[in-house]
Amino acid sequence: MSGVDHAERRQRIAAVAADVIAREGLDAATVRRIAAAVGYSTTIVTHYFASKDRLLMQAYRFVAQQASERFDQVVAQDPGDIVGSLLSMTAADDSSRRGWRVYIAFWQKAGPDPAFAAEQRRWIEVALDRIEQVLRVRHGERADLKSVAQWLNALVQGISVQALFDEASWSPEQIREVLQRQVRMLLGPARDA
Amino acid sequence: MSGVDHAERRQRIAAVAADVIAREGLDAATVRRIAAAVGYSTTIVTHYFASKDRLLMQAYRFVAQQASERFDQVVAQDPGDIVGSLLSMTAADDSSRRGWRVYIAFWQKAGPDPAFAAEQRRWIEVALDRIEQVLRVRHGERADLKSVAQWLNALVQGISVQALFDEASWSPEQIREVLQRQVRMLLGPARDA
Repeated sequence: MSGVDHAERRQRIAAVAADVIAREGLDAATVRRIAAAVGYSTTIVTHYFASKDRLLMQAYRFVAQQASERFDQVVAQDPGDIVGSLLSMTAADDSSRRGWRVYIAFWQKAGPDPAFAAEQRRWIEVALDRIEQVLRVRHGERADLKSVAQWLNALVQGISVQALFDEASWSPEQIREVLQRQVRMLLGPARDA
Repeated sequence: MSGVDHAERRQRIAAVAADVIAREGLDAATVRRIAAAVGYSTTIVTHYFASKDRLLMQAYRFVAQQASERFDQVVAQDPGDIVGSLLSMTAADDSSRRGWRVYIAFWQKAGPDPAFAAEQRRWIEVALDRIEQVLRVRHGERADLKSVAQWLNALVQGISVQALFDEASWSPEQIREVLQRQVRMLLGPARDA
């Protein structure tokens, strides 16, 4: 397998696994099914991911990484864009909704499995740190930044799981408006406003 | 099987299925495993629930019904107790957390499966109607009751999925305080305050 880009193969398999999990559910995401979808043999897929759990873990990291990149793009434009960066985390478009479906599949495993639970907590920390940083840019140092970040993150989580099943009540415009009002209620006007 | 209380058996099986799903995850909740835990033969369990999906559906209804009863108990004491009734829905104690783990397992199936999605939407409607009714008692008729109920329900959902994995940040006292502040921010003082 000289000349094979292993990192790229792992990534392609993870992306396809995320797709299958999001569209068809975790039960459907067998090594055989993923292999067929990505066009590799089951032997190759098993070489990279020895079990279905490893596939799920990598699919989760893949969509979490994609969400991070969406967040980064918003913050690159405006490091204090709280509403925009929260919106980038929310299940407000097809790509995000795919990610949320994978998160839910992952959460289901994170209850009983300590490795999944640890990974989940790690990403919660990442999300909270990043929200806190945007809040700090926009509102300066404040004692309540951590708790405000937790509150906003909880709202993002809750809107997203609702939006997956009740899209009509949670259009992107409605999501933005709720996030905007919540930020204003919790923080008041920006420091430079 | 004369003299057998079928409704009671179905309920017992659903309760045990909910326990196994919450503690060990959906993969563990096989008909064989549930039968062993409840002390029935697999033949009997299969008689009531022909498939694992039927078991999950019934386990979900069981915990959703339990959550409804917790809500009813709060409202029976005080029909306008918004914070108390929201708190009764949230993953703030062991019994609620068990319920939330089953919800998450259920959501994972509700993505690809229309029957699960319809059931899920039905329970969202039930929750929103009940929250709206408590808001109405407390604050009278207002044009924004539905959207406030959706907002509060989203927060309850988000806090709960966070509390499952980050219990330290979301103690019952912290959850109550956030719900209390959110209600006050969205609705102001009660009509009779």
